[in-house]
Order: sequence, then C-alpha cells, then structure tokens
Amino acid sequence: MTDNSILSGIKSPSDLKKLSADELNTLAEEIRRKIVDTVSENGGHLASNLGVVELTIALHTVFDLPNDKIIWDVGHQSYAHKLLTGRNDTLNTIRTENGLSGFPKRNESIYDAFDTGHSSTSVSAAFGIACADSLNNEKNFTIAVIGDGALTGGLAFEGLNCAGRSKERLIVILNDNKMSISKNVGSMARYLTKLRIQPSYIRAKSRVHNRLDRFNKVGRKITNTIRKIKNWIKINLFGNRKNMFEQLGFNYYGPLDGHNIQQLQSALIAAKYSRNAVFLHVCTVKGRGYEFAEKNPKDYHGISAFDMETGEPKSSAKGYSDVFGEFICETAASDKRICAITAAMAMGTGLSDFSQKYKNRFFDVGIAEEHAVTFASGLAAGGMIPVFAVYSTFLQRSYDQILHDAALQKLHIVLAVDRAGIVGEDGETHQGIFDVAFLSTIPNITVFAPSSFSELREMLHSAIYNTPNIAAVRYPRGGELYLPEDYKYDGKDYTFVGNKKSHKLIVTYGRIFSNACIASKALETQGVDVCILKLNKIEPINEKAVSEAMSFGEVYFFEEGIKGGGIGESFGFRMYQNGFEGKFSLTAINDFVRQAKVASSLAKLGLDAGGIEKTVLSGMD
Amino acid sequence: MTDNSILSGIKSPSDLKKLSADELNTLAEEIRRKIVDTVSENGGHLASNLGVVELTIALHTVFDLPNDKIIWDVGHQSYAHKLLTGRNDTLNTIRTENGLSGFPKRNESIYDAFDTGHSSTSVSAAFGIACADSLNNEKNFTIAVIGDGALTGGLAFEGLNCAGRSKERLIVILNDNKMSISKNVGSMARYLTKLRIQPSYIRAKSRVHNRLDRFNKVGRKITNTIRKIKNWIKINLFGNRKNMFEQLGFNYYGPLDGHNIQQLQSALIAAKYSRNAVFLHVCTVKGRGYEFAEKNPKDYHGISAFDMETGEPKSSAKGYSDVFGEFICETAASDKRICAITAAMAMGTGLSDFSQKYKNRFFDVGIAEEHAVTFASGLAAGGMIPVFAVYSTFLQRSYDQILHDAALQKLHIVLAVDRAGIVGEDGETHQGIFDVAFLSTIPNITVFAPSSFSELREMLHSAIYNTPNIAAVRYPRGGELYLPEDYKYDGKDYTFVGNKKSHKLIVTYGRIFSNACIASKALETQGVDVCILKLNKIEPINEKAVSEAMSFGEVYFFEEGIKGGGIGESFGFRMYQNGFEGKFSLTAINDFVRQAKVASSLAKLGLDAGGIEKTVLSGMD
Repeated sequence: MTDNSILSGIKSPSDLKKLSADELNTLAEEIRRKIVDTVSENGGHLASNLGVVELTIALHTVFDLPNDKIIWDVGHQSYAHKLLTGRNDTLNTIRTENGLSGFPKRNESIYDAFDTGHSSTSVSAAFGIACADSLNNEKNFTIAVIGDGALTGGLAFEGLNCAGRSKERLIVILNDNKMSISKNVGSMARYLTKLRIQPSYIRAKSRVHNRLDRFNKVGRKITNTIRKIKNWIKINLFGNRKNMFEQLGFNYYGPLDGHNIQQLQSALIAAKYSRNAVFLHVCTVKGRGYEFAEKNPKDYHGISAFDMETGEPKSSAKGYSDVFGEFICETAASDKRICAITAAMAMGTGLSDFSQKYKNRFFDVGIAEEHAVTFASGLAAGGMIPVFAVYSTFLQRSYDQILHDAALQKLHIVLAVDRAGIVGEDGETHQGIFDVAFLSTIPNITVFAPSSFSELREMLHSAIYNTPNIAAVRYPRGGELYLPEDYKYDGKDYTFVGNKKSHKLIVTYGRIFSNACIASKALETQGVDVCILKLNKIEPINEKAVSEAMSFGEVYFFEEGIKGGGIGESFGFRMYQNGFEGKFSLTAINDFVRQAKVASSLAKLGLDAGGIEKTVLSGMD
Repeated sequence: MTDNSILSGIKSPSDLKKLSADELNTLAEEIRRKIVDTVSENGGHLASNLGVVELTIALHTVFDLPNDKIIWDVGHQSYAHKLLTGRNDTLNTIRTENGLSGFPKRNESIYDAFDTGHSSTSVSAAFGIACADSLNNEKNFTIAVIGDGALTGGLAFEGLNCAGRSKERLIVILNDNKMSISKNVGSMARYLTKLRIQPSYIRAKSRVHNRLDRFNKVGRKITNTIRKIKNWIKINLFGNRKNMFEQLGFNYYGPLDGHNIQQLQSALIAAKYSRNAVFLHVCTVKGRGYEFAEKNPKDYHGISAFDMETGEPKSSAKGYSDVFGEFICETAASDKRICAITAAMAMGTGLSDFSQKYKNRFFDVGIAEEHAVTFASGLAAGGMIPVFAVYSTFLQRSYDQILHDAALQKLHIVLAVDRAGIVGEDGETHQGIFDVAFLSTIPNITVFAPSSFSELREMLHSAIYNTPNIAAVRYPRGGELYLPEDYKYDGKDYTFVGNKKSHKLIVTYGRIFSNACIASKALETQGVDVCILKLNKIEPINEKAVSEAMSFGEVYFFEEGIKGGGIGESFGFRMYQNGFEGKFSLTAINDFVRQAKVASSLAKLGLDAGGIEKTVLSGMD
C-alpha cells in the first residue's frame, strides 16, 4: 500500500464523508487488498471480511460513530470497520499477541460498541443499546449487522421477536451471502433464497429508494411522504403479502446489492426515516474480489496464513479434527445407528467426508447448538447413537440442553468436544477453557481427555460403546505432540508414567501430558525424579487414582482449563479429605485468556514444559 | 367421580377408540372435573391442563401410542394425557413424594416419549425421534405439542428451522392460548393473533378438512387427490400468500377450534396424509371450563392448593419474590437507570407491580432467557442498570450469554436468581441446584446468598450499587425462616455466629443458615458447642473467611446445591491448601433431586436441622 492511498488518509470515519463516490469505490479496492495482504500473513477470517467492504463504507458514510453504534454479529467481519476507525496502521498486528483483536473489542476502540465472537447475539445487544438510548432521550441509531448463518441461531430469533414492532432507532442489516461458514442450512436459508429472487420486489423497492434519494437531506419531516409512497407500492404491487421479517414487525427493505455503495447509502438513509425498527436485506458475495476466496468461500472462512499468489495454505498438518472425522466414518460404516451432528462446522470439526458418505445420518443444524443437543437427545430416545461434534467454546451454549434434555433422562449421546483448551489467535471469546468445569457440574456424565490421535480413537470408541448416558471426549486444536516412545495407552481410567516411588507427582490430562513428559525428562537430567499421573477419564474422578496419588509427598496438578469447578480443585479436595498430608499445588486458568499463539499462552499460564519444570523445581509455595 | 364414569373405564388409549362422539365429550367433562379436584388438593398447573383436554382426547383417538409419540412441550399440560394412559387411579398422587410427576417422565410410563420441563424443547426432540424412526424404517408419527409462549424461545425456532420442509412424519401442534404463563409478548404473539382472525383462511381450510373427512379410512393412496385439492384452494383463494410457518416449510392447517374434538380429529387425520412436516394451529382457552381459571389464567398457571368453591389459594404468605418486587420498585423510583427484565415470569418473580409502575423500563422478553441476558448486556453497555429476575433452573439456559456477552466485557448486570435451591413439587427439572456451580466457573462474577428478607434487600442494594461486573443474588422459593433474635447482618462478606473458640464449625449460606441455627441450639442443649460461619458473598470465596475457618478443628460445610463445582469443595480445598490439618466434612447434593416437599428433600439430603445436628454429632467419617 503506497502512502498516497486514500485509505492512509482515513484517520477516523469523518474523513470518509469528504470522499466522492469514485473515491469510495477506489477505497473499497484498497481495503480489499489490505485485508488479503494481512490475512495471508496472520491468518484470520478472509471471505467474510471481503464480503462486507462496501457495506462497511456505506455504514460509516451514513451514520455517525461512536454516537451511532454498529454491532457486528460474530464480529470476524469487522476488519474493514477497523481500517476505517483509526486502526489502519495497526491492522498488521491483528490476531497476534498484544495486537488488534480479530473481533470488535470495546477496550480497543470507542468505535467498537459491543464485543462479539459467538454468533447470533447482535440483535439482542443492539436492541438493548437502542432501548437504553431511548430511555436516556438520545437520538442515536443502533445497527446490528448479522449474517444469514447467524440468523439460524435461536438467540437471533428471540431478539427479532422482541425488537420487531419497536419504535426504537434500530436497524437490523441481514448480510446475506447465501452461506454461513459452510453452506447455510434449514428452512430460513431456502426462504432467503426465495426472497432474493423476487424481481418485482426488488424493482419496486429500488423505486422507493430512488425517490428517497431526492429527500436525502430534507430530514425527518418528510417521513409522511415516504410512508405514503411505500404504502402505495405495497398496496398496488404486493397486496397484503408480507415476508417473514415484516410479519415479525420490521419495516423490510431489500434485497439490495451489497457491493453497490450508493444503493446501500440510499437504503440506509431511508432506514433512518423509518418510524419502526428496520430490517435491511443486503446480498453480498463472500470472498468478493479475491478469486480463490470467491470460488471457495468455506475454505477461506477462518484460515491460517497462506500464499497470496496461489491461495494455498502455508501449512496443513493433520489435526485431531481429521482423526475424529476418519474414526467416525469408519464407525458409521459398520454401525448404522451412528449419526453425526454439527452446528454449521462440518469442515472445522472434520465431518466433511461423513457428510458425503452418510448423507442420511448427517445433520448440519445451522448455528444452533441448543437444538443440536436436544435433537441428539431425540435421536437417542429413538435408538440412534448421535455424535455431536462441536467446539468447546460453542458447547457453552448447550449447557441447559445437556443437563435438562440429555442427562436427566440418562440418554446416551456423545459430545466430540473439539478445540478444547487454548485455541490461540481467536482469543478470549473462543478459548475452550470452560467445558471441563461446566460439564462436571452435571450428573451422569463421563468426560475423556485423549493426549494423542490413537487415544482419541480409542476413547471415542469407549464413549460410543462402553459408556452409559452422556459421554464427552475433549481434544485440542492442532495435531500430535511429543510423547515418550515407551508410553502406551492401556484403556484404563488413568495411567502412571515413570517411577511410582518418586516423591513428586505431576497430575494432568489431555494435551498438557506431552509437556509434562518433556518437563519430567528435563527434571531427570537435573537429578529430580518425578512421576506422572495421566488422567484419561477425567470425570467422574476415579477414586482409586486419588488414593494412589496419596502415596506421593508432593503433587503438582496442571490443568488447561478454568480453575473454579475444574478437575484439579476437586481432585485435590478428595486427596485432602482422604487424609493426604503432603503438599498439593494446582496450576490452572484463573481468568479469560487473551489472543496469542497457543504455545505462548500455555507458557504464560505455566502450562508449557518449561513452566511445569519450574513449578516442580521451585517446590511448593 | 363415580365408578361408572367413562374415565374409570379407560385403562389405556385403545379404550378411547371405542367411544362415540358424545361419549368423548362427556369424557372431556369428567377429565376436567378430575383435574380441578386434583389440583385444588395438590397444587399444580391448572389453566394449561384445562385448555388441552379435547386436544389430548383427539390425539389419543387418532394416533397409536406408544408407537406414535407425543412430546408435550414444557409438559405441565400432560395431566389429561396421564389420565388416558393408565394413570387415572394415581393422579391424586401427582407432584407428591413417590407419586406421579407433574411432567411427562419416560420412567413413569411407556406413553411418555420424552421428558420435558423447560420450555421450547419439543420440536427439536420430536424431530430427533422422527428422524430416528425414519432411519429405522418405522412408520410412526411424532407429535410435538407446543404453546404459543414456548414458541418465543429460540430453541423452538431452531427446531422449526431444521424440521421445516422435512419429509419425516412430524406434526407440530401449536396450542395457541394467546398467552404463555402471563400474556404472551413479542412480534410472534401479535402475528399469531393476526392469523387467528383470518376468516377466509379458516373457511378454506375447513373446506379442506371436510373433504378430507370423507377419505378418513381410505389410506395413504389418496394423497395425490388431497394435494390437488389443497393446491387448488391455495391458488384460488390465497394466491402465493404464505404465513410464517408455511414459509418455514411446514404444511399449515388452521386455525382450529381446540375445544371441538371432531374438528381436531379431522385435522389430525389430514395431517397424517401430508408428505411434509405439518404445523397445526389450534386455538384453546386457558383454564377452559373452570370459571376462576378462565377469568384469571395467569393466577392459575402454577398454583398451590386452593379452595375449589371460591378459587382462593389456601395459603399466601409473603415470599422472597414479593420482597424482591418491592425493593426493585423502590429503587427504580429514585434511580432512573434501573430496568427490570423477566422471561415470561413477571408474576412468579414478583415484578407485577414494577411492570405497571415503570412500563418503559420493564421488559418481558418471552420465554427467552438467552436473549434476556444479552439484551441486559446491551442495556448495560448503554448505561442502564438491568436487573434480570429469573428462576435458578431457567438461568441455566443463559450460561454462555452470561459468560460471553456480560462477563467478558465486564458489563454490570444484576441477576436476581429466584427459586434457588430445592423447589419441591416440580421436581428434577426445576430444582435450582446448579446455579452456584455454573456461575462460579465464570470470571468477574459476584454471588450473594441472603438468608432473610432484610438481607435480600441489603444484598440487592450491594449488587446494584457496590459490585462491579456481574452481580447475582440467589434466594429460595418461599418465605422467612427462623433466625436467632440476636443475629444481625452487618453487610460483611461473611459472619460468625456463636463461639469462635469452639472446636466445631458449621459453614453454610442462604436458606440452610436457618437450619444450622436450629441445629446449633439443639447441639447446645446436648452440651456440644458449635460455631457457625455464614457466607454472605459466596463467590468469589473470601480468603479471610477461609483462613479464619482454619482455627477450628472440625469444619462441617452444608451446601444446598450440586457438589461438583460448588462452593464447598472450593472452600475446603483452599483451607487444606493453606495447611488446615483438621477435618472437613462436606454435605452437598450429588444427583438430580426428585419431587417432594422442600422440607422432605432437605431432610433426605441431610440439609435440614436434624441432618445438620446428626452430621455434627456423628463426628467425621
């Protein structure tokens, strides 16, 4: 990017308002190039960001931030917004430690009105802000920008149901790119497709917009005229026919071309004059302007660093998700009861093959984790064996369904909890550090924590065939890590590795076992003898493991999860209650964890090999 | 009920099919009388049960349970279903210890296909069962019966979005009684009202039904004819106009008179011949047939025992909810930032007055706990002080929203957690025993546990004005309990009551403090000296309280909540880690708790005064 680019002159949104239509179009191209550049270096969400460049520009020319507020649903599409709100110079730090977040953050900029990360929250949050403004007699506008994928989440519907018909200055913009992360599913998706292809609707609406253009600067007084025009069109062209969003009480405008800045501006201005909450249907192309991403948007949804010329990712080692995908396909081949469920994450969770091979038994429910679990419970009640593959952080949304719909009835469902533990660059909103704690509040649940691909396979097998009620298997993002050559999983609930006569014992589970092994080797070279207790089935806690741990003088528990309600506290408590008189040290996570590379976060948390070594060496404090 | 009633002859649903239309109508009246009789004795859900008597009869005459399956959303409307499925003789035990549950239970009857209790789960569960049946080549029908209130929950929408357009033998019946628990809210409610008053729709649809009646017994072969008729009507009468449920891909029938058994039967038979999932819109009157309940359905939603002649409840002592309601009104009078939010529980949570006095700042969001918390977060971001009053058991549904939308941003929202702890007759699905455990996995949260009305007021004040981020105040169902005359709350995080030089210490919080005081008195008369540590702010755990507790030789912790992840384990762990060498006993809840009177459950759990006394006396085991 040269210094005399238009983008480099934008220090705040007000600078945008001085630009001509042509300059805005040029700016869009500059922003696009900048985003591709940055994501090819840092990884991140590419396709979704390229899709909303014009929409973002239009929003910032029509509204006045930070008085007006934009809530970006999910938030991974906020890069253009960041570029236009004083963060052009620092975008290259995005998703890196101490750098910009890949999501909106209130503590990063006054232009970020509400933190997002998980899907479908924007309408509820925006309606809350709009109500607050109205109670405070403020005349600001609040805009929720929500994708068609996020619209499949029940929370979005709850928000629309409450916000529809309200008189607040609320504008819901549907960023309809015909897919969420992968191809959007469900009736809503098909319905949106139908809306998109209603030419009469488009023509009539664009006529409204043309008329509205003339009133651009006249102000709120002309509202009546506009309403008359709209009513005339409605009566003459559409009869009483209303689409679903109108039925929910919104004034509906659209569908609009999401890559036409001027059309968007006209519609946004029209929306300002509405007396009702507005629903603006904008059609965009995911990956717009970057050939590889346009052709293959789901591959470019969340992406690692890649080669800009070829579009090829720089690395693609095999990960736990792949192993899960292979295993579940093999199992489904011989067992017709196996069903796989994903909440719009078929690719991320490794279910692409399954979705092709076992179409009948594959259920992509949209971004609807609550439904996924209750639906799984229904499948189980009907005699199937449902496996719900889900990222740890999103499983948080199903807490009550796991408890109330599955656990209470002792239904056998399997939770394949992917991205468990630290996930890295996505940061606080996506860390998988709560699943162990919240799952272990639930009666009738078993949780497995594999430390290698082969353990993942064996534990999934146990979860499916040898575990009653709910069985969860949690595994990290990424791939195989170091394990000692002589270590072998024997299918037991726990495994001792090393000299059981040692004075010192490390207790851990999952990925951290690898670091513990490295640390124990390093300690050995320093003459410090340490044994490791690896928990395989972490919940319920095995009382024999507890009592065997009591023969050691010092016990060091390392947990890649939140401390409150985690396994460490509970394990230690049981040891003490049984009369353990040695010392017990617990290293776990105490707070939300900010973005950084996984290794860096683990190091900071004292959960890398070095940290484990240091803790064991320094003795107890 | 005399022995020669029709009802007494119904041993299973098949007996129903022999009855004439007149006999079915008589049966409806008998069922009604039986329900009023029973609820007036045992308490329970009256109005909703009276509303679905005819629908239940129609369902059991048209479908073949247990092959066909009915999922009762929420499930409190299943009394007539219980009466018709072999539980006529035992209905008088409903909601009592070891008696019938007030909700469907798979382990109670083969006719109960799926346990319910929390709202909006039925479509997802039914769709799961229907998919399982279809994968197993079974030809059964699965029917979800869902109220218009439950339809405001996002989970229901997620289910409809996934089930719409499916070819499974799924029938969703909307039991539209124009209100959920109190008057239904939101756009969906207004939309349903509009649907109800479309006479052309009703006429045309009823014509379809009349024609269908003639085919009743011809079987599936005539499907094509029926489809042609329907298409003709659609084209000629409605053009392309579709209602929201049709837009979601369902074949819509209705609205139907929910108290006309024959009309319902015709529609259900028609639904059987549909090739698509069906959405049947049934209008019922809540409380139908019992004058007091018809006039005042929200008073008769969930109700204690009452006088059948006058409709007056037998007891109406002041409860925590009332005190909360008074306090929040007083506070709102002097502070314009206070907003109150309820998820369709204005009356139950004590917000009726607030809803009248502060209409602008009162938000009933429908049965939408997820939205409630995210919306509250938006209000907080906009400078308001939102107070979400919610039953503990329903707060489970907002776990991710509390964590992701409020805690991460350190937004100040107040959770008034009502019905915390054992709730009694509603049983397993409604016990408030998980909130402490799941809330304490969340960083940046404070939890208060008052033990009296005045403490509730003071702690609410602290939560609103002196607590950063999320502040939860949890209080039980019911009213004031015994407290020693000399006990006074001093606003501190914890309070010692009794002799701090004692060897024995009881630690507890909330309602159990009263039982601890009674137990300590009883122990005193036996010459056993015991001190009580009452935790007022239970999360985060006060480290000074932990260290002061260490001066005692024996510590007995009593917790009216789930053990895993509770405060007791964490408190004990900290004591031990600090070097406590005495003994620590923890009495908490290990599993789901079945229905019984609160006092009885507490006694069984060892949390009543007698249990506490016994545990302390028996020393440590």
